[in-house]
Amino acid sequence: MHEPGAPVLTYASAGVDIDAQDRALAGVKRLARSTFTAGVLSEIGAFGGLFTLEPENPRGQVLVASADGVGTKLKVAQMAGVHDTVGEDLVNHCVNDILVCGARPLFFLDYFASGRLEPGVMVSVVEGLARGCRANGCALLGGETAEMPGFYAPGEYDVAGFIVGGCRRDRLLRRDTVAAGDVLVALPSTGLHTNGYSLARRIVFDVLGLRVDSPVPELGSTVAEALLAVHRSYLPAVAPLLDRGLVKTAAHITGGGIPDNLPRALPEALGAEIDLGSWDEPPLFGLLRRAGNVPEDDMRRTFNLGVGMILVVAEARVGEAVEALGAHGPGWVIGRVTGEPGVRFGRR
Amino acid sequence: MHEPGAPVLTYASAGVDIDAQDRALAGVKRLARSTFTAGVLSEIGAFGGLFTLEPENPRGQVLVASADGVGTKLKVAQMAGVHDTVGEDLVNHCVNDILVCGARPLFFLDYFASGRLEPGVMVSVVEGLARGCRANGCALLGGETAEMPGFYAPGEYDVAGFIVGGCRRDRLLRRDTVAAGDVLVALPSTGLHTNGYSLARRIVFDVLGLRVDSPVPELGSTVAEALLAVHRSYLPAVAPLLDRGLVKTAAHITGGGIPDNLPRALPEALGAEIDLGSWDEPPLFGLLRRAGNVPEDDMRRTFNLGVGMILVVAEARVGEAVEALGAHGPGWVIGRVTGEPGVRFGRR
Repeated sequence: MHEPGAPVLTYASAGVDIDAQDRALAGVKRLARSTFTAGVLSEIGAFGGLFTLEPENPRGQVLVASADGVGTKLKVAQMAGVHDTVGEDLVNHCVNDILVCGARPLFFLDYFASGRLEPGVMVSVVEGLARGCRANGCALLGGETAEMPGFYAPGEYDVAGFIVGGCRRDRLLRRDTVAAGDVLVALPSTGLHTNGYSLARRIVFDVLGLRVDSPVPELGSTVAEALLAVHRSYLPAVAPLLDRGLVKTAAHITGGGIPDNLPRALPEALGAEIDLGSWDEPPLFGLLRRAGNVPEDDMRRTFNLGVGMILVVAEARVGEAVEALGAHGPGWVIGRVTGEPGVRFGRR
Repeated sequence: MHEPGAPVLTYASAGVDIDAQDRALAGVKRLARSTFTAGVLSEIGAFGGLFTLEPENPRGQVLVASADGVGTKLKVAQMAGVHDTVGEDLVNHCVNDILVCGARPLFFLDYFASGRLEPGVMVSVVEGLARGCRANGCALLGGETAEMPGFYAPGEYDVAGFIVGGCRRDRLLRRDTVAAGDVLVALPSTGLHTNGYSLARRIVFDVLGLRVDSPVPELGSTVAEALLAVHRSYLPAVAPLLDRGLVKTAAHITGGGIPDNLPRALPEALGAEIDLGSWDEPPLFGLLRRAGNVPEDDMRRTFNLGVGMILVVAEARVGEAVEALGAHGPGWVIGRVTGEPGVRFGRR
């Protein structure tokens, strides 16, 4: 419910222009294609890039790679002086990006950049990376520590991650297996994950005037606790379903939300219906919507709204899939694949 | 020759503390080891991280991975408004880091972060990445574009790169093959490559008061041309030597210079003698030394001094190695492996 008279905050007004990003990415895709060698199986824009060492072997090992950052969730961590969770966010984000291709993590490398190296902070970040790597059975194989005077403000740093996973080529998740009528199974997020922080920070700190240590009674936590909740890895929950062939494709719900990410798991000719009545949105999202007077379309394109991953499952196997997820927390049927492109939101 | 009375500039005084980095890296190594899985063949600190999909196969394919940034060479590019060469710097830096393990590039991913995305600048950076990837037969497989309002000053961006290459396990370059008496063959750099820019910028812009477009008669170029000379890829020159088994190990001369990088290519018990009379230092380094009154030890730990890579070659095969390099530009004998740890500089 928007508060009449309050300023309307959108992701673009918070300084992030997803459309400009999309235009730049079109140029980038063309350039990337000019470099493709015989091993490349993918185009840029999939959640992970696919590369095979054995182009002739239909069952050969495929390497699935992805690069990511933590975005301005880092600013919250830096305000709160909590540096040991952003590494876990980064690893889990990367793990999820290759998981939706069907891959399990093999190894990870990081890039850590600051104006003046504070060894304690840097080691704390790496503690989070190492914890995330151990939990996902992924080796932290290397990294780069850059000290760039004048590039980063005192106390600030940026961190990026790079993951490589593996999948047998005939077990890669493929969009062309998806058909209208397939069922969408959602997995809950643990919070904002790593997206929408430029808008969320604007609302929480500027509009509401809260501090990182302010308690938020309706969330039962402080601002820092709510905003720094660790991006969940879906590997433990989803791997058993992959082993049993229960997943056709999957979408990691990151920047762009369900409208931009779910179509990446569908053939171009197909779309999806999402049943807004199928889950209770966690209270953090309602708080942001109301306080920021955020239009619903911006809410959906900016935040995950409580849905961190969506699996596409054949209707006949939905019961089995939801049951298999049970052991790692609930999944639920959030909608269906339809014969028309685009994502439609409704309430059954 | 130092100018008496002029302030003495060191890398630490320019804001970079390599010793603090080394202390942090000790903590990082311990954490990384806690994540190692059966596939890991290396420890952090080698030029590249080594991972095998077939731990039992002595001839299996090994993946060699490395992460890097461009450092504050970016600031020069941003001052000059030249954005299409730093991508090549980054790719070539990464290619060299895995080349010294014995690996050829397979694929590359980038991370590009700015405060507000300028699509033209970003595409220009990717043009450089793509040119570098094509020249090295490396696929640009993906990347992440991060828009982080408030993290980067207007017009500034950071870019990091991640490379994965491959090498048959029994063809990896191994330090334990190196013996006292082996010969060091140097390959010329094309300029500063990507190291020492915090100190170089301080000298060129603050001490000498030059601008990026200032001509520098003794270099026969402008400041921007001299400082943005592209980091050379040694792949075309060195790959034929690898094919013929002429290289025991190799060192990519980056941050820390010859004193910090050459020992990474030697067994811990051995060291090296470098003959300072064996090459003519390019004039850019003399200019920086004189204008910044930089102590010789700082010069050696900060800059490559004209030496971008050093190959360790058995004495009996040096003639063959230098001849094979001939087609891609000259290499020369710069010194020898000795029975004592440490790198000693002298003039024969």
